[in-house]
Amino acid sequence: MELVLMTDFGLKDGAVAAMKGVAQGVARNLAQRLPITDLTHDIPPFDIAEAAYRLRQTAPYWPDGTVFVTVVDPGVGTARKSVAARDVSGRIFVCPDNGLLTHLADEIGFEGVREIDEIAHRLPGSSESFTFLGRDLYAFIGARLACGDLQFDDIGPTLPEITRLEVHQATVLQNSGLEDRVVGSIPVLDVNFGNVWTNIPKSLLEQVGVNFGDQVQVVIKHNELERYREVIPFVHSFGFVPHGERLVYVNSLLHASLGMNCSSFAAHYGISSGAGWTVELGPV
Amino acid sequence: MELVLMTDFGLKDGAVAAMKGVAQGVARNLAQRLPITDLTHDIPPFDIAEAAYRLRQTAPYWPDGTVFVTVVDPGVGTARKSVAARDVSGRIFVCPDNGLLTHLADEIGFEGVREIDEIAHRLPGSSESFTFLGRDLYAFIGARLACGDLQFDDIGPTLPEITRLEVHQATVLQNSGLEDRVVGSIPVLDVNFGNVWTNIPKSLLEQVGVNFGDQVQVVIKHNELERYREVIPFVHSFGFVPHGERLVYVNSLLHASLGMNCSSFAAHYGISSGAGWTVELGPV
Amino acid sequence: MELVLMTDFGLKDGAVAAMKGVAQGVARNLAQRLPITDLTHDIPPFDIAEAAYRLRQTAPYWPDGTVFVTVVDPGVGTARKSVAARDVSGRIFVCPDNGLLTHLADEIGFEGVREIDEIAHRLPGSSESFTFLGRDLYAFIGARLACGDLQFDDIGPTLPEITRLEVHQATVLQNSGLEDRVVGSIPVLDVNFGNVWTNIPKSLLEQVGVNFGDQVQVVIKHNELERYREVIPFVHSFGFVPHGERLVYVNSLLHASLGMNCSSFAAHYGISSGAGWTVELGPV
Repeated sequence: MELVLMTDFGLKDGAVAAMKGVAQGVARNLAQRLPITDLTHDIPPFDIAEAAYRLRQTAPYWPDGTVFVTVVDPGVGTARKSVAARDVSGRIFVCPDNGLLTHLADEIGFEGVREIDEIAHRLPGSSESFTFLGRDLYAFIGARLACGDLQFDDIGPTLPEITRLEVHQATVLQNSGLEDRVVGSIPVLDVNFGNVWTNIPKSLLEQVGVNFGDQVQVVIKHNELERYREVIPFVHSFGFVPHGERLVYVNSLLHASLGMNCSSFAAHYGISSGAGWTVELGPV
Repeated sequence: MELVLMTDFGLKDGAVAAMKGVAQGVARNLAQRLPITDLTHDIPPFDIAEAAYRLRQTAPYWPDGTVFVTVVDPGVGTARKSVAARDVSGRIFVCPDNGLLTHLADEIGFEGVREIDEIAHRLPGSSESFTFLGRDLYAFIGARLACGDLQFDDIGPTLPEITRLEVHQATVLQNSGLEDRVVGSIPVLDVNFGNVWTNIPKSLLEQVGVNFGDQVQVVIKHNELERYREVIPFVHSFGFVPHGERLVYVNSLLHASLGMNCSSFAAHYGISSGAGWTVELGPV
Repeated sequence: MELVLMTDFGLKDGAVAAMKGVAQGVARNLAQRLPITDLTHDIPPFDIAEAAYRLRQTAPYWPDGTVFVTVVDPGVGTARKSVAARDVSGRIFVCPDNGLLTHLADEIGFEGVREIDEIAHRLPGSSESFTFLGRDLYAFIGARLACGDLQFDDIGPTLPEITRLEVHQATVLQNSGLEDRVVGSIPVLDVNFGNVWTNIPKSLLEQVGVNFGDQVQVVIKHNELERYREVIPFVHSFGFVPHGERLVYVNSLLHASLGMNCSSFAAHYGISSGAGWTVELGPV
């Protein structure tokens, strides 16, 4: 089975290559060669929330049985647990138990969750090293799972509850005498293009009467302070407005998003993601 | 067959990993595993010209039958076509029809060009998503081609003409009573090292009487304004001049290039690539 | 066998993809497909010392027989030699002979070293290109070795001595009447997190009486000028001190290192790596 790796280690040094070497060593000892794909290694350092979102964004597109190893681990070496969870398609997610599995648990669900025995499943000879469990534990156990050398049920005892991040749900604000509005959060940016991704599903937009072709009232706030207010069109894609013009569109996860054709909405208006950011959308 | 991916998506988020998941899903359904290589995902956003050059720079080094999927697509979701082209070595290039194939068409040539039927060849279940054809169309059809699940001739109808970028050809300027000179453009930089790559083939340099070991008169202009003028040596490689000294050399595509030994010519003299930049080379 | 690539080329252009195409072409001609992994391509341009360290950091984790191709080659095209070295586990290292193998030679050792015949082992048709031996020589010969198409002993004549970088060894300073101290260098940073990695093995710390849980006197100098002095705890990992607090820990290569919990020690105190930097550690 494929092994998919995500970390906040970057690719400038040897950390990820050491993890891959360990994983290929496991495979070699079983006379296999393990296919490994990078999800990304550019999660901002320690940003568990962004990594949790990237898992949710990509895992459903991978075949049954894929093993995902995620290492964003500010608590490495402390008492925080390590976890492996399996979804109904047999995909397995191996990571520190620090919230990384929040969105997968909510939106896809797990059929089994195990606490990893960090002593039993450690790379032999690594007991003096305390700060690189990506190499010494996660890549090693992930490779054993992907190669069929370890079964999910043998990882460790069932873990009754995983650590969860606080998650905001988009909601409809009903205004008596006024049009209803949807308010949501900005879980991540579409970082390379500067589009602003909200957690507002397309269905909620429709519920307040906003459909493709309509003009939309957009308000973005940070810590309740208004940062952007404009009426812009809700269209299918960037090229439906002139270069440099703003648009509301539905992103690849079917959530309402804000963009600027061939430019960066986020950079232009100083918008970021995460705690404190809210977006309000409604008909004009 | 190998699948080679190029985009302007970057690798900081999950976009490329979602594409790879879709492609591996195609392979898995056929009881295969697809080898995938990244050409680059750091094409500057929307820079079709640079991506077109990178295809030309690398494709000839890949084996027959390799499938290249390129997604630099500012017009995603609009009426622009999608295209698949096959060269005489059986390499297939899948991309939006926006100029990405210009250099390959000019310098290598295609034996067949098809318009992709975007409805028929879409990832099942993706019809609500309009802004991520990299995942929903191009990775999916590229994987089917690479796995042998779809034949080139079944992609769609023959496309009589592809969209082309304007391309500048290097030319010899004949000066009565003076030495001839070659004038060319700067299609790209050798970005990591700051070398300046021109479109002037080594053969044109020789035609105006410049050979290894000679001194060369170099003039660089931007929008007709002179930005650099110096006489520097034409040598085989960087180490033939002292650290920090300038040189003319022949790059890996056999075009005249400008460098600074162990330093960045482009950064030092403020030189960039693309529209408006010209380079003039001639004997002293 | 696996091919592992490291360069200072970056991944923004087509250089690495051209190397991989050449390597896959070699494999294809032998009816094989070659598994290729990137160690890193973000070695700072021309930084042989950092690349040498990354080889040492990762190679021992890769299976026997892995072929490593490293191209950090400011002297490309000059008289500097090209080398292939084999360790006792049958791993082969192909690179310019400019110091890249220093740490491997010192700490792991080679059982054979060959000078590469640059004419005989060149990619056919590449003789006009002088500045891209990564594609025209190293990837080509590396792929032939990894595919079993070329045997180590046929690479070229035995090379009696490789080029070596100057290496600093950590040493104990014995102070009469005072506590002993260890003084070492900073070969690299843990770049993504800003931790400062020294060359001081944990065993030397213990020799001067510093053990987990102790307070440590830390002094960092650059060119003999003091840049940082503080007493901080020696703990197992980051989470053993509060956010933003400093710590001494043992890194994944079992060397003493300096960190700041969830922050960058190097950025905060302006510490870098390489020539001129020293670290002194001792009991309080």
